Amino acid sequence: MAIASSVSFNCHQGERESKRANREEATPAAFFNMDSREFRRRGKEMVDYIADYLDGIEGRPVYPDVEPGYLRPLIPATAPQEPETYEDIIKDIEKIIMPGVTHWHSPYFFAYFPTASSYPAMLADMLCGAIGCIGFSWAASPACTELETVMMDWLGKMLELPEAFLAGRAGEGGGVIQGSASEATLVALLAARTKVIRQLQAASPEFTQAAIMEKLVAYTSDQAHSSVERAGLIGGIKLKAVPSDGNFSMRASALQEALERDKAAGLIPFFVVATLGTTSCCSFDNLLEVGPICNQEGVWLHIDAAYAGSAFICPEFRYLLNGVEFADSFNFNPHKWLLVNFDCSAMWVKRRTDLTGAFNMDPVYLKHSHQDSGFITDYRHWQIPLGRRFRSLKMWFVFRMYGVKGLQAYIRKHVELSHEFESLVRQDPRFEICTEVILGLVCFRLKGSNELNETLLQRINSAKKIHLVPCRLRDKFVLRFAVCARTVESAHVQLAWEHISDLASSVLRAERE
Amino acid sequence: MAIASSVSFNCHQGERESKRANREEATPAAFFNMDSREFRRRGKEMVDYIADYLDGIEGRPVYPDVEPGYLRPLIPATAPQEPETYEDIIKDIEKIIMPGVTHWHSPYFFAYFPTASSYPAMLADMLCGAIGCIGFSWAASPACTELETVMMDWLGKMLELPEAFLAGRAGEGGGVIQGSASEATLVALLAARTKVIRQLQAASPEFTQAAIMEKLVAYTSDQAHSSVERAGLIGGIKLKAVPSDGNFSMRASALQEALERDKAAGLIPFFVVATLGTTSCCSFDNLLEVGPICNQEGVWLHIDAAYAGSAFICPEFRYLLNGVEFADSFNFNPHKWLLVNFDCSAMWVKRRTDLTGAFNMDPVYLKHSHQDSGFITDYRHWQIPLGRRFRSLKMWFVFRMYGVKGLQAYIRKHVELSHEFESLVRQDPRFEICTEVILGLVCFRLKGSNELNETLLQRINSAKKIHLVPCRLRDKFVLRFAVCARTVESAHVQLAWEHISDLASSVLRAERE
Repeated sequence: MAIASSVSFNCHQGERESKRANREEATPAAFFNMDSREFRRRGKEMVDYIADYLDGIEGRPVYPDVEPGYLRPLIPATAPQEPETYEDIIKDIEKIIMPGVTHWHSPYFFAYFPTASSYPAMLADMLCGAIGCIGFSWAASPACTELETVMMDWLGKMLELPEAFLAGRAGEGGGVIQGSASEATLVALLAARTKVIRQLQAASPEFTQAAIMEKLVAYTSDQAHSSVERAGLIGGIKLKAVPSDGNFSMRASALQEALERDKAAGLIPFFVVATLGTTSCCSFDNLLEVGPICNQEGVWLHIDAAYAGSAFICPEFRYLLNGVEFADSFNFNPHKWLLVNFDCSAMWVKRRTDLTGAFNMDPVYLKHSHQDSGFITDYRHWQIPLGRRFRSLKMWFVFRMYGVKGLQAYIRKHVELSHEFESLVRQDPRFEICTEVILGLVCFRLKGSNELNETLLQRINSAKKIHLVPCRLRDKFVLRFAVCARTVESAHVQLAWEHISDLASSVLRAERE
Repeated sequence: MAIASSVSFNCHQGERESKRANREEATPAAFFNMDSREFRRRGKEMVDYIADYLDGIEGRPVYPDVEPGYLRPLIPATAPQEPETYEDIIKDIEKIIMPGVTHWHSPYFFAYFPTASSYPAMLADMLCGAIGCIGFSWAASPACTELETVMMDWLGKMLELPEAFLAGRAGEGGGVIQGSASEATLVALLAARTKVIRQLQAASPEFTQAAIMEKLVAYTSDQAHSSVERAGLIGGIKLKAVPSDGNFSMRASALQEALERDKAAGLIPFFVVATLGTTSCCSFDNLLEVGPICNQEGVWLHIDAAYAGSAFICPEFRYLLNGVEFADSFNFNPHKWLLVNFDCSAMWVKRRTDLTGAFNMDPVYLKHSHQDSGFITDYRHWQIPLGRRFRSLKMWFVFRMYGVKGLQAYIRKHVELSHEFESLVRQDPRFEICTEVILGLVCFRLKGSNELNETLLQRINSAKKIHLVPCRLRDKFVLRFAVCARTVESAHVQLAWEHISDLASSVLRAERE
């Protein structure tokens, strides 16, 4: 029977073709307007469009010249009843979409932090879309789960993460791809919350969850990303900002002081987020000081290295990660600076059961025969959403196409360029560098008032030749120059500086007049 | 100055080229191993690979024949130091990845629910990857934000959502693309939680947040998806399961009873999730009964129509959405059944300030000059993560390429096929249909014990010709037949049924022996 059935399953092509042909007559033609033949043609056109777009991106203004609400009048108020042609849609890309795009991959984009873009990652993403599996459990697509586990081990080894964070064949830790660092922080906070509640309830069953949550306190530096505060808000627990030192770094003394004060007030410290490479100025919390305190106090330490983490694959920057051995969870974004297109946020934990224990729930339609083997991973227990794409393909393509050496060269090039910009700024006595330049971010400003610098930034961004965003360091308004695009070269940095310098002259002239 | 600077920004191409050439010599060749020229070639090959894969997907076993841990021994333990060739990677796709893939887009895949796959969506996703903007604020890429708002209006109109859910030019509601229905439920719950806490604290400032949270109760049917329970867990509030009726529907009486009992016990009901199209059996909560109760009680009503929502674009299925006017938020997944590839979960709210008020926090580096205009949308306040891709491009391509009529025809075809399968089952006296077939899901089983049906399912899935997952309805183990693939035709359904019927004969014969 097996053979006969196998035959019938694979050899009814002719019969099916004829049934399909009959069907086509009965169904609107629209329904069949893009088959694989058409996709082959349009897909290749799209590949060329993408290559043309990225080849010519320097010619576009990096920041769009549109006002809020620009788009709605350009398109119909409702979806079309009848299908439109592909040509019509493609024409609208340049007419409607591109005028409103901020070009993150322009070599004149120096805002926020980089977001990754590489051709190997784009190819892998195409494949990911075609396979289109939803990898919430091992059974839902074993390759999707297993490649992720192994790629996270590869990446962990590139960073020289302690063995405890790796899955290996029988490890208790392991890695998972989250959508963003915000989600990683939230997942870590929720796991830590569940753990401490269970511990306290085991010791004192009379405590309700709410009574415990009221006393829980999490800590992070006053320089941490807003997503940490948000995780506290979502998790319904207090989050306290620990004052950073003169280098915008969280140190032992400030953390210890906060912990002691809160414990004395009857509160329960349970979670610390340390940042490596803050968003404002790429400062680093002092892990070697903060880590041991967390361990002594039995507090979960999560490290958010969203931007800086990619640099740790270079031996000369690995010292910045020293102290990771004290952490319970660690996260950074290959989708920022490691050429793996968004989204791909890499998170590791030392004890995977901390995550799976916090979220595990198993309805029958998600059960599968292998799940009790203890040998497999169901990533849905590691994250907020249920569904997930086959994102490890992007890591696989990028790591193999560049090799570790190629990735290291890429990081080094960006760091070189930021130092190049730094030295240009330092040569101009009108300007000051605000914080030590360690990786690819330069914080600088005109010596003078905040208003002066706000005017300069406004002039820079309204000229739309380059794009920057500001930050506030203590009471100072500061400009951030982040080396972002994959294709940025010394010449772009030089031009950007000349432009900033010219605008500064004009702003200073106007001020004197 | 503007002109001179503009010239220098666009005419240094030659100079830059020569600098780049110098640089290439100093940097490992690896670093440049895929430029746009190479991408044009490899991208076109990938387009063909994708078309070949989908054209030939019927020839692959729908469920993979691998054991947990199959992949690790097939690839190196660490990333390569030197770059590998693209040919090597591509060879490994068939050798390492494909043997472990569950083929969700095979016409023999009838498990879970459909996940969308269409060529127009794949093309749009390629473009999304190339633009690669991170649209957390309007300024971060105005087109990304504005197209999303308008596409969500288009889609809302297709469903005939009440005007209050649309953004329009000056509406108070509006739509947002979430990653998954799980996230939409969580976002709604958190917004409702913030709202009720603020209301209660405004009335009684002596109540702490924790004291209020301890009393908050959310409700959902005992048939709801596990993600609802998870949202309660994450939000740190009690979630109660309301017993569904004989048709697995949440009704007024059961909900009212739960509310009264909890209020009498001093608890505070604040949130109800109603499901349209449950995962187990595609049953529908009675919105016209449940909605008015929620409104009377001042309880936030969220509707989760993850799977079924797509069908509401057909006038003949729109009645299933009646009562949506009572809801505060509504969500369904175009990435399930509306040909927009994962991820694209569409969520609407009546008052956008409920979301933005719950999450809004504005560090300086995310501020931009337009944000106080009241006219623009910063979607980062509407969701859990900060980053977001340009997902509305997929909606735009799909809605225009298919037209509303094409999308309706697609839904109708799937519903027809599920009724075709239903009638095959009904003609076989050994089987029973377990719940009314309304959309594309058929719940069925052999008359007889759960063990018998478990054996049948195990035989089906180990034969790997088709793939199904089970559910449990009350005490019964039930098989789910979900019409999934875009390319599924009557012939596939007929073959699947013959196969199930043959295996049933074999299972029944074995039982008798």
